[in-house]
Amino acid sequence: MNKQIDIQLSANRKEKPSFSSLKFGKTYTDHMFIMDYSRENGWHDPRIVPYQPITLDPAATIFHYGQTVFEGLKAYISENEEVFLFRPDENIKRLNRSSVRMCIPEVEEELALEALKKLVSIDRDWIPNQEGMSLYIRPFIISTEANLDVTPSQTYKFMIIMSPVGSFYKEGMSPVKIAVESEYVRAVRGGTGNAKTAGNYAGAMIVQEIANAEGYSQVLWLDGKENKYIEEVGSMNVFFKINGEVVTPGLSGSILEGITRKSVIELLQHWGVPVSERKISIEELYDAHQNGQLEEAFGSGTAAVISPIGELSWKNEKMVINDGKTGELTMKVYKALTGIQTGKEEDPFGWRVKVD
Amino acid sequence: MNKQIDIQLSANRKEKPSFSSLKFGKTYTDHMFIMDYSRENGWHDPRIVPYQPITLDPAATIFHYGQTVFEGLKAYISENEEVFLFRPDENIKRLNRSSVRMCIPEVEEELALEALKKLVSIDRDWIPNQEGMSLYIRPFIISTEANLDVTPSQTYKFMIIMSPVGSFYKEGMSPVKIAVESEYVRAVRGGTGNAKTAGNYAGAMIVQEIANAEGYSQVLWLDGKENKYIEEVGSMNVFFKINGEVVTPGLSGSILEGITRKSVIELLQHWGVPVSERKISIEELYDAHQNGQLEEAFGSGTAAVISPIGELSWKNEKMVINDGKTGELTMKVYKALTGIQTGKEEDPFGWRVKVD
Ligand SMILES: Cc1ncc(COP(=O)(O)O)c(C=O)c1O
Ligand SMILES: Cc1ncc(COP(=O)(O)O)c(C=O)c1O
Repeated sequence: MNKQIDIQLSANRKEKPSFSSLKFGKTYTDHMFIMDYSRENGWHDPRIVPYQPITLDPAATIFHYGQTVFEGLKAYISENEEVFLFRPDENIKRLNRSSVRMCIPEVEEELALEALKKLVSIDRDWIPNQEGMSLYIRPFIISTEANLDVTPSQTYKFMIIMSPVGSFYKEGMSPVKIAVESEYVRAVRGGTGNAKTAGNYAGAMIVQEIANAEGYSQVLWLDGKENKYIEEVGSMNVFFKINGEVVTPGLSGSILEGITRKSVIELLQHWGVPVSERKISIEELYDAHQNGQLEEAFGSGTAAVISPIGELSWKNEKMVINDGKTGELTMKVYKALTGIQTGKEEDPFGWRVKVD
Repeated sequence: MNKQIDIQLSANRKEKPSFSSLKFGKTYTDHMFIMDYSRENGWHDPRIVPYQPITLDPAATIFHYGQTVFEGLKAYISENEEVFLFRPDENIKRLNRSSVRMCIPEVEEELALEALKKLVSIDRDWIPNQEGMSLYIRPFIISTEANLDVTPSQTYKFMIIMSPVGSFYKEGMSPVKIAVESEYVRAVRGGTGNAKTAGNYAGAMIVQEIANAEGYSQVLWLDGKENKYIEEVGSMNVFFKINGEVVTPGLSGSILEGITRKSVIELLQHWGVPVSERKISIEELYDAHQNGQLEEAFGSGTAAVISPIGELSWKNEKMVINDGKTGELTMKVYKALTGIQTGKEEDPFGWRVKVD
């Protein structure tokens, strides 16, 4: 079986959009990576081809039973034009963990990393070089067998597409308002919450729509069993600075193991800031706020990197945090992470991976 | 906007398979229905075309965030060649309820029913006319907008495909062995369990695989909050006859509102058999079994219609029900339902819908 990445370059390069007016995830680069899986041949025929539509049987199981996993990471370009990926090995490992949960065959880590690097390198002039911008990379796997029986597909496609994204913080970093959800549930232990798979996001859309309509930018989920413990935000993990200590919900099995989350924890430990991963109930958070001990709150995720939380609304209570302003530690974490990502700062942890 | 169903017949009809050797959901008929949705035009251009692949952008949200709903129903042919659908209006209503949960625009009930009837009528020679066989019909909606932002798609496709299916009971009705799952969870209240959407099925595959490997044909799910109350089987609702009374889990919000379930309840009420929809814990069931009061158990769903349960395994306990044989009431329900579906019996409830 061919395991060399075959490259077929596009004859018609697209015109690049104005990077400063980019909307998230609407513009795609010139090329994409694709690789097929069959029971007989395993993963085979890895190739980079011009970005193009895909054709599937209407009975392909992806359309009916949603057997799919995905990842999200970014490529950054430094001031001296070096291109970096941030901890891509972690994304590939998480992709494989998600795949195990969803009965999808794992991909070879080395090959996947090579594919990421090659694709980014070929489309490197799509990486916006302005402050805060980057190239968003979306690896994903879909089940493709035409079969209405509810059983794992015998064939799959692994693809990588890329999209240049503008800055999350065009007008400077401004804290968001988040609604604590106490009716709908995103995931429950024993379910698929810790896999990065479509169904988790589809189910959350209605709640996100309601929150948006009420003026909140995101939803903070509580656990599915007791509706009590804090889990995570739409596509971010959460951190709270309470009385000098940083607290983040532990990996309960129902939240995503964020790579930004992991990096924040490692960074805080490195700095000697007390940080603990544990259960934290919404009541505990509310009490901390009432006592004036809830000092800062922020979300962590690939898209925004760090997103300060200025207000949490829970039932009829509004908790304004740090006067609705970005906290000092929040800003320090943001600067440190983006500094490492974009090559502005030293990388003591070896998180950057250079693309030639 | 065009709301008339346009019909484009296939020039090359496929060869029909031998109906007696059919596997579920692997063979498709000559035609399919398709209709598009856009924000500006709503649902438009309904059409019946030759069965064919569909082409989508790799960034289509269906591949990433799984915004999709589906339905399953059957067409039967009677001894005197009349073609019937079973309660198709219920499927269309449920499709729309699922769509509301998944932020998908609802379809017009009348148009959807007309599409079902027209498509079945055009491919009516694909309906196997042997005992126990039928034509399985799969309406489904997928989100098609190319957009990596997690937000409801602005465009969708509603499609109907059909597949002839052999008899579930080739060697006569034989009770199945089912494993009660006490670790993994299918759905939780506040989640998507009562919507017929891909993610519920993708998440269950791993459990189904484990159960199959251990010799069980299906999994019986417990509730996600307390891991205690009986919910449903993979693609069936469940009924237990306990000391003369038939009990089925109530519609808690996390199980699918089965149309066969509803029909069974109405049938039992019509016969004067006591039936109640309520919470039933696995302990209660176990005690009833120990006391000799668990008389019969069966699953209900479109695929099998009625499937007798001969054994339930829960942790280290095995509950053999009715000596592993099909119960009397189970058989009576099966005969009554299939009699109505296939036109063999009177239809006092008006459940059959004739296709011209
Ligand atoms: C549900 C969810 N939680 C958390 C995260 C943050 O993870 P990461 O830091 O790896 O981007 C994401 C986004 O990737 C997500 O989708
Ligand atoms: C999860 C689930 N429960 C129950 C059922 C039974 O529903 P119905 O009787 O409408 O086929 C199905 C199948 O359709 C199902 O997928």
